[in-house]
Amino acid sequence: MDLGKIQHPGFLKDMQHGDLEKLAADIRHFLITNIAKTGGHIGPNLGVVELTLMLHKTFSSPEDKFLWDVGHQAYVHKILTGRANQFGTLRQYKGLCGFPKRSESEHDVWETGHSSTSLSGAMGMAAARDIKNANYHIVPIIGDGALTGGMALEALNHIGHEKRKMIVVLNDNEMSIAPNVGAMHNMLGRLRTAGKYKWAKEELEYLLKKIPVMGGKLASTAERVKDSLKYLMVSGMFFEEMGFTYLGPLDGHSFEELEDHLQYAKKIDGPVLLHVVTKKGKGYTPAESDSIGTWHGTGPYKIDSGEFVKPVNGPPAWSKVVSDEIIKGAEKDKRVAVITPAMPVGSKLETFADLYPERFFDVGIAEQHATTMAAGMAADGMKPVLSIYSTFLQRAYDQLVHDVARQNLNVFLTIDRCGLVGADGETHQGVFDVSFLRHLPNMVVMMPKDENEGQAMVKTGLAYEDGPIAMRFPRGNAAAAPTEDEKDIIPIGSWEELTEGNDVAVLAVGTMIQPALEAAATLRAENISVKVINARFIKPLDEAMLHKLCQQGTPLLTVEETVLQGGFGSAVLEFMEEHEHRDIAIKRMGVPDRFIEHGSPKELLKEIGLTSTNIAAQIRDLCKSEHQNHQQRA
Amino acid sequence: MDLGKIQHPGFLKDMQHGDLEKLAADIRHFLITNIAKTGGHIGPNLGVVELTLMLHKTFSSPEDKFLWDVGHQAYVHKILTGRANQFGTLRQYKGLCGFPKRSESEHDVWETGHSSTSLSGAMGMAAARDIKNANYHIVPIIGDGALTGGMALEALNHIGHEKRKMIVVLNDNEMSIAPNVGAMHNMLGRLRTAGKYKWAKEELEYLLKKIPVMGGKLASTAERVKDSLKYLMVSGMFFEEMGFTYLGPLDGHSFEELEDHLQYAKKIDGPVLLHVVTKKGKGYTPAESDSIGTWHGTGPYKIDSGEFVKPVNGPPAWSKVVSDEIIKGAEKDKRVAVITPAMPVGSKLETFADLYPERFFDVGIAEQHATTMAAGMAADGMKPVLSIYSTFLQRAYDQLVHDVARQNLNVFLTIDRCGLVGADGETHQGVFDVSFLRHLPNMVVMMPKDENEGQAMVKTGLAYEDGPIAMRFPRGNAAAAPTEDEKDIIPIGSWEELTEGNDVAVLAVGTMIQPALEAAATLRAENISVKVINARFIKPLDEAMLHKLCQQGTPLLTVEETVLQGGFGSAVLEFMEEHEHRDIAIKRMGVPDRFIEHGSPKELLKEIGLTSTNIAAQIRDLCKSEHQNHQQRA
Repeated sequence: MDLGKIQHPGFLKDMQHGDLEKLAADIRHFLITNIAKTGGHIGPNLGVVELTLMLHKTFSSPEDKFLWDVGHQAYVHKILTGRANQFGTLRQYKGLCGFPKRSESEHDVWETGHSSTSLSGAMGMAAARDIKNANYHIVPIIGDGALTGGMALEALNHIGHEKRKMIVVLNDNEMSIAPNVGAMHNMLGRLRTAGKYKWAKEELEYLLKKIPVMGGKLASTAERVKDSLKYLMVSGMFFEEMGFTYLGPLDGHSFEELEDHLQYAKKIDGPVLLHVVTKKGKGYTPAESDSIGTWHGTGPYKIDSGEFVKPVNGPPAWSKVVSDEIIKGAEKDKRVAVITPAMPVGSKLETFADLYPERFFDVGIAEQHATTMAAGMAADGMKPVLSIYSTFLQRAYDQLVHDVARQNLNVFLTIDRCGLVGADGETHQGVFDVSFLRHLPNMVVMMPKDENEGQAMVKTGLAYEDGPIAMRFPRGNAAAAPTEDEKDIIPIGSWEELTEGNDVAVLAVGTMIQPALEAAATLRAENISVKVINARFIKPLDEAMLHKLCQQGTPLLTVEETVLQGGFGSAVLEFMEEHEHRDIAIKRMGVPDRFIEHGSPKELLKEIGLTSTNIAAQIRDLCKSEHQNHQQRA
Repeated sequence: MDLGKIQHPGFLKDMQHGDLEKLAADIRHFLITNIAKTGGHIGPNLGVVELTLMLHKTFSSPEDKFLWDVGHQAYVHKILTGRANQFGTLRQYKGLCGFPKRSESEHDVWETGHSSTSLSGAMGMAAARDIKNANYHIVPIIGDGALTGGMALEALNHIGHEKRKMIVVLNDNEMSIAPNVGAMHNMLGRLRTAGKYKWAKEELEYLLKKIPVMGGKLASTAERVKDSLKYLMVSGMFFEEMGFTYLGPLDGHSFEELEDHLQYAKKIDGPVLLHVVTKKGKGYTPAESDSIGTWHGTGPYKIDSGEFVKPVNGPPAWSKVVSDEIIKGAEKDKRVAVITPAMPVGSKLETFADLYPERFFDVGIAEQHATTMAAGMAADGMKPVLSIYSTFLQRAYDQLVHDVARQNLNVFLTIDRCGLVGADGETHQGVFDVSFLRHLPNMVVMMPKDENEGQAMVKTGLAYEDGPIAMRFPRGNAAAAPTEDEKDIIPIGSWEELTEGNDVAVLAVGTMIQPALEAAATLRAENISVKVINARFIKPLDEAMLHKLCQQGTPLLTVEETVLQGGFGSAVLEFMEEHEHRDIAIKRMGVPDRFIEHGSPKELLKEIGLTSTNIAAQIRDLCKSEHQNHQQRA
């Protein structure tokens, strides 16, 4: 079938299972060949081909509403709703988004990217539907990993209480991004096994009748046995306890089982939890046999061999530089422990986990718990490292305020994927953390200029004993491999002058240092001398250096890859105001006040003007206005 | 017993139950008479007298660690650890904190204020203990309401998986702050009833033996029946599913039951959940018969009558002004609905709930879910109002970023308890919201000067259709009752000049307008003319007015009751930088970069310098420096 000709999922209504099998094969072929070129979330999408087909056959989108939790598994949905032709641009600048996007299609009614939001969104839509006396179906599709996120559990509790009609599809692939953890995961495992025994229902009812009922107390007992057997039969005690009708587990690759259960679920009043077991990567051997999450999301790959197309022998990932240095610290200091919320692979923590299993904690998708657990460890004398992506740290803002910063505990945050992350786009950009960390009392925030300073900063963070300290670092690979020599601890709040210059001082943070140096080099030819400063501490600022610059009257340019509102540049403005340095010309460059979509970091930086060319232009402007200013005063 | 002589809880070890009964009566008398004078959380503390006594008798604090979730129920713990003499200063400036406080006592190992943090803290401490090969007990005490907070559920999942030894005391008073909601609440109700049948265990085992085992398939079936019966017997299926040993429910006012179960729990390996049923307000009739949460936390009251000592016929609470206006909006617009995370009483939403039950949602302690549910309603065409305290909105930061602001949905946030809240202290100050809202793209943030403008602002928020909009308002009572007349919608981003003046312009936000006006009045006598501006929009700023002021060269003073880092004043600094208004003298006043403890708002504002006297002094300074500046230029 030519997938490019699909415009609306309505054509599925009349298809027989045999034809669906063929269509599923076509879709798998399409996904495997297209993502081989663009990269993308191949594993999750191969796992939900049959499920998505049957959802669109059973329900009528967009009247009925699908909420794809996390959203990286919505490719098949995109194909069935008329977007196959755009897959050549998947996750590329101005191209098809890797997640549901309301502006792309009326069939995308709920945007995701972070996990565990679909149930709350569905509850809101169910409330809206009932207030409007409408009667469409609401179908959130949530993975077993996302189900352990606190918000999803809050929503389960509320949905089970309110009893509004909705069909929650639990897509259980026994593995979220990394292999799953948690009591609920174990429970799902038991349910999967238990499913085999469903046939025994009749036999159990027969047994039940054999239990003697002796009146009084025992009558009640027998009734409770009955209740208990009910739980046993439907297998999903947990969900039934929470107020859901539990159906399953069923084979998520069988059209028959899917159709039977979905049709049945449609008729049930109140909330249903449909437990669907799928296989991540289904139909493509390299992805199917992946056990640690390598094929969850990938770059381009060679279809036949399953090899990844990426530079060989390149410099290590930033995550690796940081985790290697944490290992060195953990060797020396037994108080060092690492907590990750479900990102052991992404954060390159496998080696630490192997070396120090008793000091390594993967808590699953549970950023709030991870953060406050770190506070608990610190309160009891440990030196916990919370290894977390910038975008996911947003989930733990109150935990940072209330548990970490307020108690002034020695938690070391290593914040990965800071700045523009690229193909994952607006839901994943790490551009807010400076603004939400900087106003927390007691918090130190730093960012290194390169991998060697990164090593020194990890050492600094581990040695710091005066409260919380955060080190930000970008996604992707370091510029070069760090050297082997032991690094010195960096004095808190100290900046570093990288070039000599008097005309303008550029205060650049992390990733913006390189373009600032390039701009300075360009301007040297124009006889403009620029002092580039590595503003490696975002909080506290290097006040001594700032005072000196202000006393010299040097115009200042701040450059950061984070939002301008409340960011590093604003910290410098606040310093100037506080100390009444009123005559200094100052400009800030950073991320503007809007959400930045997907694309390569290079394209995105160009779009928002964070390039060496623009830095040079700003410096020229500052020189000009300073020159005019001098003339006016003279 | 003279409670003031208690220095350490060790004396409880040798006490018999009879003596404990007497001590419990003394403690109740002490609490009732002291809190009658100071105000405080009387209900929760009267409910945990026996539980706290038996915890301190069974365990050895501070070696064994108690983590009081939420923390407002720790008064008895404070009495037993040598702080009875300080109760005259409870929740007062420089006095005893109303929550656990590490600086107060070595027995306070974990600070709380927000709910649902204790299990994660306990997990961190259990990990620390096991890494150190120590063997103390870790005992979080958590209420049934707090258990529905997402972080607590994340922690349950992780603790059940890790199986480390700890004793979770579930203090089930069938009511958290307000009557509880949620499927888990219903489940706890079933458990409470089920407890009666525990005696049947032996009988059930007898029955179990009667079930014929026919080999093969049925052998497995019978085994599952056995498993199922195990759940039945211990009653706590949910918690057992999560990996805990469930004990209870037991009477939390019976020393016998408490002692038996705590001693038994001490011996169990792995995590235990001890379900203790208590009665909030136990022993004081007005508090005990409270069904809606009036006696959860109170001001001073008359002991005999249970009347509250508070101004009669005073102006309405700010919460009431806002909720009344929301009701007016809901009459006209059927899309208006209200969501509260467990604060129907605090936010004065009872009338709305009575009038529009189908459009009112109390989701329990679940701020994340509340926020994303609002997004879901808005995505489906409703106009949801999220009624939430500033300090609790911190819990939903990522939901604001990712679900509300990013999808640019029409959610109206009415943010209660903004600024310094007083007696609840540092965990509850509403001083961060401006800094964490202002950097969100698409977000409008406003704060009214008085209750009439408050009405207009609610109308503005309900009418706004371009994305999320937030209205902040303070704790406590309005200055006067608002007028009855229909208010006009306020143009987005418009400020208001309140006084004429040329020497300095004061840009004041909300609660800071009154002291600014007072300062202006004082300075009139000194021939300093001050333009006081009601900066009712924090985002977007009134750029036209700012440009005009800058063109006139008027020095600016910003005043806000929120943190200076990234706050409203910083927004003005950013505007000045962006538009290169370089010669304008500007100063900011606001909350400094540290956590502000408890005390009356007046005392706290004085401590941090946010008074009319200080505003006047700053204005004088600005005039002086501006004058010098002019002289230098001339």
